[in-house]
Amino acid sequence: MKRKNTWAPRPAKRGQLKLSPPDAGVAPRYTGIRTFARAPLVDSPEGVDAAVLGVPFDTATSMRPGARFGPAGIRDASLLLRPFNPAQEVDVFAALSIADLGDLHTTPGNAERTAEQIAAQLEPVLRAGATPITLGGDHSIVLGELRAHAAVHGPLGVVLLDAHADTWEQYYGERYFHGTPFKRAFEEGLIDPSRSLLAGMRGSLYAASDLDEPRGWGFEIVTCDELRTWTPAHYAERVAARVGDGPAFLSFDIDCIDPAFAPATGTPEVCGLLPHEAIAFLRALRGRTFTGYDLVEVAPAYDTNAQTTALLAANIAYEFLTLTALSRA
Amino acid sequence: MKRKNTWAPRPAKRGQLKLSPPDAGVAPRYTGIRTFARAPLVDSPEGVDAAVLGVPFDTATSMRPGARFGPAGIRDASLLLRPFNPAQEVDVFAALSIADLGDLHTTPGNAERTAEQIAAQLEPVLRAGATPITLGGDHSIVLGELRAHAAVHGPLGVVLLDAHADTWEQYYGERYFHGTPFKRAFEEGLIDPSRSLLAGMRGSLYAASDLDEPRGWGFEIVTCDELRTWTPAHYAERVAARVGDGPAFLSFDIDCIDPAFAPATGTPEVCGLLPHEAIAFLRALRGRTFTGYDLVEVAPAYDTNAQTTALLAANIAYEFLTLTALSRA
Amino acid sequence: MKRKNTWAPRPAKRGQLKLSPPDAGVAPRYTGIRTFARAPLVDSPEGVDAAVLGVPFDTATSMRPGARFGPAGIRDASLLLRPFNPAQEVDVFAALSIADLGDLHTTPGNAERTAEQIAAQLEPVLRAGATPITLGGDHSIVLGELRAHAAVHGPLGVVLLDAHADTWEQYYGERYFHGTPFKRAFEEGLIDPSRSLLAGMRGSLYAASDLDEPRGWGFEIVTCDELRTWTPAHYAERVAARVGDGPAFLSFDIDCIDPAFAPATGTPEVCGLLPHEAIAFLRALRGRTFTGYDLVEVAPAYDTNAQTTALLAANIAYEFLTLTALSRA
Amino acid sequence: MKRKNTWAPRPAKRGQLKLSPPDAGVAPRYTGIRTFARAPLVDSPEGVDAAVLGVPFDTATSMRPGARFGPAGIRDASLLLRPFNPAQEVDVFAALSIADLGDLHTTPGNAERTAEQIAAQLEPVLRAGATPITLGGDHSIVLGELRAHAAVHGPLGVVLLDAHADTWEQYYGERYFHGTPFKRAFEEGLIDPSRSLLAGMRGSLYAASDLDEPRGWGFEIVTCDELRTWTPAHYAERVAARVGDGPAFLSFDIDCIDPAFAPATGTPEVCGLLPHEAIAFLRALRGRTFTGYDLVEVAPAYDTNAQTTALLAANIAYEFLTLTALSRA
Amino acid sequence: MKRKNTWAPRPAKRGQLKLSPPDAGVAPRYTGIRTFARAPLVDSPEGVDAAVLGVPFDTATSMRPGARFGPAGIRDASLLLRPFNPAQEVDVFAALSIADLGDLHTTPGNAERTAEQIAAQLEPVLRAGATPITLGGDHSIVLGELRAHAAVHGPLGVVLLDAHADTWEQYYGERYFHGTPFKRAFEEGLIDPSRSLLAGMRGSLYAASDLDEPRGWGFEIVTCDELRTWTPAHYAERVAARVGDGPAFLSFDIDCIDPAFAPATGTPEVCGLLPHEAIAFLRALRGRTFTGYDLVEVAPAYDTNAQTTALLAANIAYEFLTLTALSRA
Amino acid sequence: MKRKNTWAPRPAKRGQLKLSPPDAGVAPRYTGIRTFARAPLVDSPEGVDAAVLGVPFDTATSMRPGARFGPAGIRDASLLLRPFNPAQEVDVFAALSIADLGDLHTTPGNAERTAEQIAAQLEPVLRAGATPITLGGDHSIVLGELRAHAAVHGPLGVVLLDAHADTWEQYYGERYFHGTPFKRAFEEGLIDPSRSLLAGMRGSLYAASDLDEPRGWGFEIVTCDELRTWTPAHYAERVAARVGDGPAFLSFDIDCIDPAFAPATGTPEVCGLLPHEAIAFLRALRGRTFTGYDLVEVAPAYDTNAQTTALLAANIAYEFLTLTALSRA
Repeated sequence: MKRKNTWAPRPAKRGQLKLSPPDAGVAPRYTGIRTFARAPLVDSPEGVDAAVLGVPFDTATSMRPGARFGPAGIRDASLLLRPFNPAQEVDVFAALSIADLGDLHTTPGNAERTAEQIAAQLEPVLRAGATPITLGGDHSIVLGELRAHAAVHGPLGVVLLDAHADTWEQYYGERYFHGTPFKRAFEEGLIDPSRSLLAGMRGSLYAASDLDEPRGWGFEIVTCDELRTWTPAHYAERVAARVGDGPAFLSFDIDCIDPAFAPATGTPEVCGLLPHEAIAFLRALRGRTFTGYDLVEVAPAYDTNAQTTALLAANIAYEFLTLTALSRA
Repeated sequence: MKRKNTWAPRPAKRGQLKLSPPDAGVAPRYTGIRTFARAPLVDSPEGVDAAVLGVPFDTATSMRPGARFGPAGIRDASLLLRPFNPAQEVDVFAALSIADLGDLHTTPGNAERTAEQIAAQLEPVLRAGATPITLGGDHSIVLGELRAHAAVHGPLGVVLLDAHADTWEQYYGERYFHGTPFKRAFEEGLIDPSRSLLAGMRGSLYAASDLDEPRGWGFEIVTCDELRTWTPAHYAERVAARVGDGPAFLSFDIDCIDPAFAPATGTPEVCGLLPHEAIAFLRALRGRTFTGYDLVEVAPAYDTNAQTTALLAANIAYEFLTLTALSRA
Repeated sequence: MKRKNTWAPRPAKRGQLKLSPPDAGVAPRYTGIRTFARAPLVDSPEGVDAAVLGVPFDTATSMRPGARFGPAGIRDASLLLRPFNPAQEVDVFAALSIADLGDLHTTPGNAERTAEQIAAQLEPVLRAGATPITLGGDHSIVLGELRAHAAVHGPLGVVLLDAHADTWEQYYGERYFHGTPFKRAFEEGLIDPSRSLLAGMRGSLYAASDLDEPRGWGFEIVTCDELRTWTPAHYAERVAARVGDGPAFLSFDIDCIDPAFAPATGTPEVCGLLPHEAIAFLRALRGRTFTGYDLVEVAPAYDTNAQTTALLAANIAYEFLTLTALSRA
Repeated sequence: MKRKNTWAPRPAKRGQLKLSPPDAGVAPRYTGIRTFARAPLVDSPEGVDAAVLGVPFDTATSMRPGARFGPAGIRDASLLLRPFNPAQEVDVFAALSIADLGDLHTTPGNAERTAEQIAAQLEPVLRAGATPITLGGDHSIVLGELRAHAAVHGPLGVVLLDAHADTWEQYYGERYFHGTPFKRAFEEGLIDPSRSLLAGMRGSLYAASDLDEPRGWGFEIVTCDELRTWTPAHYAERVAARVGDGPAFLSFDIDCIDPAFAPATGTPEVCGLLPHEAIAFLRALRGRTFTGYDLVEVAPAYDTNAQTTALLAANIAYEFLTLTALSRA
Repeated sequence: MKRKNTWAPRPAKRGQLKLSPPDAGVAPRYTGIRTFARAPLVDSPEGVDAAVLGVPFDTATSMRPGARFGPAGIRDASLLLRPFNPAQEVDVFAALSIADLGDLHTTPGNAERTAEQIAAQLEPVLRAGATPITLGGDHSIVLGELRAHAAVHGPLGVVLLDAHADTWEQYYGERYFHGTPFKRAFEEGLIDPSRSLLAGMRGSLYAASDLDEPRGWGFEIVTCDELRTWTPAHYAERVAARVGDGPAFLSFDIDCIDPAFAPATGTPEVCGLLPHEAIAFLRALRGRTFTGYDLVEVAPAYDTNAQTTALLAANIAYEFLTLTALSRA
Repeated sequence: MKRKNTWAPRPAKRGQLKLSPPDAGVAPRYTGIRTFARAPLVDSPEGVDAAVLGVPFDTATSMRPGARFGPAGIRDASLLLRPFNPAQEVDVFAALSIADLGDLHTTPGNAERTAEQIAAQLEPVLRAGATPITLGGDHSIVLGELRAHAAVHGPLGVVLLDAHADTWEQYYGERYFHGTPFKRAFEEGLIDPSRSLLAGMRGSLYAASDLDEPRGWGFEIVTCDELRTWTPAHYAERVAARVGDGPAFLSFDIDCIDPAFAPATGTPEVCGLLPHEAIAFLRALRGRTFTGYDLVEVAPAYDTNAQTTALLAANIAYEFLTLTALSRA
C-alpha cells in the first residue's frame, strides 16, 4: 500500500493544475474530512474555477436561528455527489477545478460588521478569477457578497428564488437583518432592480406594500403560485429578458422549497416549490453566466434525521457547479 | 419606555372595539404567550368576530393518540402568520376582531360526555355572533360542535376534507369514536347528507360498503384520486351545488394531506393531497359563509422537529380566518 | 369471553384453508405481535398464496446502513392496512391466503454467503406455489432472490423502480454489493435484459457509462425525469412490451420515491417520484403476473418519528398483494 | 440447509417440553418477528412457566398518551437479551419455559370495560400455573391484573416502584384512571395495604393528603429521596417485613426512573432513580416469589431514537424473568 | 354548565387578592394557553408575589443558538407542576400570588440594546414588590437583570450554578455576550464578588487564567468536581458565608446539569451535576431571600422529544417559587 | 484584513514546528471544516505528537450499524474543546503538536481485509513517532490497530473500558467481528492477557463461559457493578499492577457508558458507568504512557439531536490527548 493513497481528501498541493474530489471507488465516500463534495481544501483561490465557501452566521434571523451550522450541514450531506451530471451531460469534476476554501470569518451578534468582513474576504476570491458558491448562513450575508461582486463587476442583476423578497426596511430598528438585504443593496447601488427577477414569494405579509414597494423600485416579483405554472423554458426566458448581458448574481433561499422537503430553515412558509420544479428552473439557465451563487437559510438543527434539507441544498449547489462548468466551457 | 408597550400579547380589554395581534415590528414575533397568531386571549366571545378555540381531546383515537396536544402545537407554530393574505388580498387582522378563547373543557377517557361538554361550551360562542374556528383534538369532537351549530342554525351541510369519511358505526362496541361522528350526526339529524360533500377519501377500507353506505344516505363522497384531478374552481362549484344557501360547516382533517407534509396525525394514509392543492380548494370557497370551521387530528408528538404539520395546520386555520373575513365583509 | 378470541394474531393452524389477518373491529389493530398487516405467522409456505418474508441484511450498503431493520419497521407500520383496496376494487385479505413467514437467515458481514442463503431458503417457498413478497434489506439481496426465481422459472424479465440501475461492477473490489446485483444477475444468466425495464434513475453519476453500459447489454433504462411525464397506462404498455409473456420479477427500491416521502433509505437522491405517481404505476400493472416482488432499502433509523417511510413501504407491499390477488383471481 | 432451521422464531409446537428463544449464534438476533426476547409465540399458557403478555391500552392517561404502543416497543428493544444473567448467575432461558402470549384485548376509550377484559383473559393464564409478566399500557391496567391475581390467590401484598402512589380518588369524575388503580383495588379488597410497600414517590403533589391518606389506609410509602439512601439489602428487608409469606404482586412504573433514562413515559417526574439503583433493588428480591409482575407506562413515541426507555424496560422485564427462575428453582 | 368555569386559565382580574393556577381536577391540565404552571396571565405586577417572565433572546450565543424559544419551551413543560412541594412541605400556589407576566421585549441582533430594554422593563416589577423569576434566553440577559436589581437594591451577591463562570472579557470584539455578563456587571458595580459564589464550573478552558482572574477580583469559584463532593448543607453554609445579609440574586444556567439530563442548551459540557444533586442544593437554601432568580440557556430545538430539559427547567423554577414562598412566609 | 487570517482551520504547513487549533477568539469556533478539535489537517504524521485518525467502518456489527459515521460525528461535536484541561492543569494544545490525519481507508463488507488495511496505514504513523488516537468505527477495527502497535512495540497490555469483553469466537461463522477482536489478537500473539485489564462488563451473556474463558487465558475482567465501587486511585493501581512497564494500548468502547449518556452505539447495555466516573478513571492514569488509544462504537444516527454521545466521545478523546501530553512532558 502506497502512502500516496492513504489520506483522503488531501489538502490541495500548490501548483497542482486541477483540483478535484477523490475517487469514491477507492475508499468509501464517507471516508475523510467533510469538505463540499469531498473537494480539496485549500487556503487560496488561485487556480480554482469554482470556490465553495461557507458563511456560518445567523444573528440576523427573525424566527428560528441555526443557519450558522448550515455550511457544515450541507458539506456533511454532500458526500453522495458524483462527478457526472446526467441531466446536463457534463462531468462537473473534470470540467472544473473545484475547491473548498473553508468558512469566512464573521462576528456573531453583529450583522453590520459581518457584512464588511464578508465583502473583504470575498473580493480577493473574485479577483483571483474563481466563481464563488457561498453556503449560508442567513440571508443577511448576501449584502456582503453583493458588495464584493459589485466592487469587481459593477451593479448586478439579481436572480432570486425565495419565499420572501427580503426587501423590508428594518426589524425592531435593526437595518441589517435577514429580511432587508436587497433593500440595503438597492440603496447602496450594488444591484439593479430593473435587471432583477425575484420569484417564489408566498405566505402571509405585513401589508400589500411589502411587494408593491420593491416593484415600485423596478424589481420584477413573481409569486410562487404563478411561478409554479411556468415551464422551465419560460423561466429561463424571463431571466434572460431581465438580466440581459450584464453581470448577475444568483441567490437561492432554501425556503423557496416546500417545508416537507426543506424543513430545516428559519422562516418556513407552506406551499413552496417541489425540488424537481426548482431544479428544473436552475437547469434551464444553462449557458448563462453568473458572477457567483449563494444558498442560504439552511438551519440543520431543524432537519430530519435523514438530513433531507441539507441533501437537497448540496444538490442545488451541485447545479450551481454545473452551471459554472457549462458557462466556463 | 412606556409600561403600555411592555407586555405582549395582552389580555383583551373589555370595551375594546377591535381585537388584533400585536405588531411584530415592535417585539420579535416569538415574544409572548402562545395564543393563535398571537391574538388577544379573552374569556368572553362578545365583540369577537372570529374565535379560535382548542379542544384538547384524543380518547377516541383508533391508532396513534396525541391530538390532545394539537391546540398547543398549532398555536406554537402560528407565530409566523402575518396580517395580510396576498392570495386573497385581504388584511385579515384588520378586517376581523380576532381572539383566542383558550381551550374547551373535556373529559379524557369519556368521549360521550366530552361531546356534551363541547356543545354546551360552544353554543354561547355561536349565540354571541362569533365564528368559531376549532382546533382539535381527534375528529370525535366534531359531534359536539355540530350539536352546537345545529342548535343555533338548524341542520347543516358538511364540507369535509379528510382521508376517511368517518361514517363508521362503531369500534369494539364504542359508538362515540373518531371514525363515527358523521354517522352519529346524521342519526341525530344535525347534518343533511344531501347538502354535504366529503372529499379526499383514500387508503384501504374494511369493505366496499364503507363508502357505499354513506353514499346511500345521501352523502357525496369524492376520492382523493378523483379530487386531485379537479380544479379549485370545479371544487367550489361542487360545494356550491351541494351546500346551496343553507347553513354549512367546514371540517378539515389534517390527514387529507399527504403524510410527508403532515406526519403528525393519528391515522395517516399515503398519497394524500399536497398542501398547495388543498389550500387552493379552500381559497376557491371565497365568498361562501360557514357557521364554523374545525381543523382536527394534529398529534404533535409525531411531528418533525421543524413542526411541519403544525405550521401547515396554522396556515389552514389562517385561510379559515380569511374566508371568515371575506364572508363578513 | 371465549378463549378462542383471546390472542391476536394467532399462529396459523395447519390445515386451515385460508390464512388472513384478524378483524380489527374486535380488538384494536395495534393489538398483537407485529407481522405484516397482522397476517398469521406460519413456518411453512404450504397453503399460502402470498408469502411475506423479511431479509434483514445491510452489509452491502455504500452509504447509510440500517436496512437490516427494514422488515421489522415495515411490519410495525403495516397495522393500518385494511382488507379492501378500493382503487382496485378487491378484498385482498379475502382473495388470498396471506401469511408472514418471518425472516430469512443471513450472515452479516458476508454478502456472498447471504446470497446463497437467500436462494436456498426462498426456492422452497416458490416450489410450494406461494408468491413471495420480500422486504429488504439492501438491494444486494435481490441476487439471491433472482437465483431462486430463475431456478424455478428460468430467466426473468425485471421490472425495476429505483433511483439507481444497480448495474455497477464493484465497489472497492467488492463484487457483491447493493449497487451491483443486476450486473451479477445478468452475468449469471438469471435475468434477460431485453425483457427488462429499469425506471426512475436520477442523481449524479460516476460517468455517462453508468447507464450506457447496461443499455448496451439490452436493458431499457428510463430516467425519473422522463418517467414523471408518463401516464400510468403508458408505463403499463412499456412494461407489457418489454416483459411479454415470460416470467417476470418486480423489484421496488424505496429510493425511487422522493426523500421527503421516504427519508429512511441508504442512498437518497433528491427529485424522486411522488408516492401517488409510483403507486399509480403499480396499479396500472393490474392483470400482469409476477413470480415475486421485493421492496428494499428501507432503513428505519433514518425515518421520521411518524414512520413515514415504513408506512409508505407497507402500502407498496399491499399493492403487491393486490396485484397478486388480481393475477391469481 | 435444513428446513427446520429456516424460520425464527417459530411458533411453539404443542407438546414441546421447553419453550425458549432461538440461538442468536445461528441467525442474527434481529432476525424474525418481534416477540419478547425472541421467545416462542404461543396461544395457550399450558406448559409455560413465564408468560409475557402485552396490554396495549392508554385511555386512562392524564398527560401524555401513547402507552398503547408500549408492548410493541419493549418487544422491539428486547432483542439484545441473552440467556444468562451474570448478576444472578442463572441461565434464565434454560431454567424456565418462556413464551410470549401476545396482547390482551382491550377497549380503547373505556377503562372500566378494559379492566374487566384484562381480568377475564389473565385469570386462565394464572390458573394454568404460569407467572405472567405484563407489559403495559398505562397503570390503570393493574386493576384488571389484580382482580385476576386476587381471584386465584386472595388479597395481595403490592410491591410498587413508581413516582406516584396512584391512590387518587378520581380525575374529572373518572374513577377508572391511571392515577387511581390502587385506591380501587383497595376498595375492592384485592390488595392488603398492610402488606404493601409503595416506593419511589416524588414530584409535586396536589396536597399533603395525597400521600397521607393512603398511609392512613395502611400503605407504607417511601419517597424517592429516602429510597435513594437505602441499600438493596435494606430494601429487600423492608419488602420482606411488609409482604411476609402471603401472595404478592410486583408493579413497576417506568416513571420511577429518572426521565433522562426513561423519557418515554406519560407523566415524567425529574430526580428519579438511576437504572442501576432500581435494578439492584429488584435483584435484592432474589428468592422471593411473586404471583406476577407488570411494567407499565412506556410510551414509545416519546422515546429517543435509540429506544433508551424501551431497552431499559426490556431489561427490567428480564429481571422479572430471572426472579421467576430463581423462585421456581 | 356555568360560564365561570369554561375558560382556563383565565386572565387575572384586577382586584383579585390571590392569583393562582386553575384546578387540574376540573379540566385536564393540558387544557388552555401555556403560561408558567398554568398561572394567570397578567399585564401588571401589582398584587403579584412571584412574577414569572420570559426573555426570549439568544443573539449572544457562542455555539448553539435557540434560547429565544426557552421561555415558551419551559412554559409548555410546566403543565405537570402541582401546588404542593412535599420536599419543603409548602403549598406553593396557596402561599404566593403567582402570575405569568409574559415576555420582555428584546432586540434580536443587539445584545447591548437588549440589556437596556431588560433593565427598563424589569425595574417596575421589582419596585412593585414582586420577586421576578426570569426564564432565558442566553446568559447575556443577566446583565440587564442585575442592572434592575442593583438599581433597586444596591450591589448584589451572586449565587451562580453554571458550567462556566461567564467572566470572560469579550468574543471576537463583542463585549456584550453570553460568556461576559458577570465581568460587565462587576465593572459596572452591580455585583459584589466578595459576596458571590460561582459553582459548577467544568470543561476545558482557554487558559488557567479563565478562573484565576475572576478569583482575583474576589469571586469564590467552585468546580463541579468539588461541588459534587459537597453535601447540600455544606453548600448552604458556603452560600450563607459568602452572601451574608445583603441583597442577593440567584442565577441558574441549565448547563450546570449533565447533558444527558439537559441536552437542550447552547454550550453543553459533559460530567455535570445530576438533577437531584442540583435540586438538593437549591432546597438547602430554604429560608434565604433572593431579590430574584433566573434560569437561562434552555434551547428547545436541541431537546428530546420528551422535552427532558424543559421539564427539568420547569421544576427548577418551581423550586425558585418554593424558596420565594418560604422566604416570604 | 490580511489574507493570512482569512481561512480557518488552515491545512498545516510543512516545516511548521507546532500544529495547533486556531484561536476561537478570532473567529467563532463553528467556523471552518470539521477536523478534530479544529486541529490542522495534514497528510503526514511527521512532526505530529498526537495524531487523530478516523476509521469509518461498521460491517462487523451484530446489532445496530452506523459506526462508519462515528469519526465525522465526533469531529463535529469536538468544536467546543478548548486548549486548557483544568482537571489536569495542562495546556493540551500548547504541550503537543496535534493534527488530524483524516480517515483510514477501509473496505465495507470485508472486515478481514479492513483489518489488514488498518494495520498497513497505521504502522507508518507509529514509526513516525506520533501517538495515534483512533476514532471508530466498530470494535473490530482494534485488531488492525493492535497489529500495527505490536509490529512496532511488541505484545501489548490492553486496558479496556467496555460493556463487553469482545473475546467471543465467532458470529454465524464470521471470525472477524466486533465481538471477537481480543480473541483474535490473543491468538495472533499481539496482546498479553496477563498484562491486560478489561473492565466495565455488564449485561446478559450467552453463558457463564463468556467471561470465564478469557479469564482462563489470563485476562483480568472486572464487571461494571464492581468497577463502580472502585475509586479512581484504585483503578489506576490495578492498571499499574497489570500493565507494568511494558507497552500498552487503551481501548474505550463508548458502550461502557450508560445509554442515557451515550445512546448512539450499536449494542447498548443498561446500567453503565456515568461519564464523570469513567473520566475520573482515565484522569487517574496520569503519568502512564500508552502507545495509542481508540474510541469506538459511536453510531451517530442513534444520537440525540444535541449530539450527546458524540460530545462525550470528543471529551474522552480530549482526555487521551491530555494523557499523551502528560506522558510526553
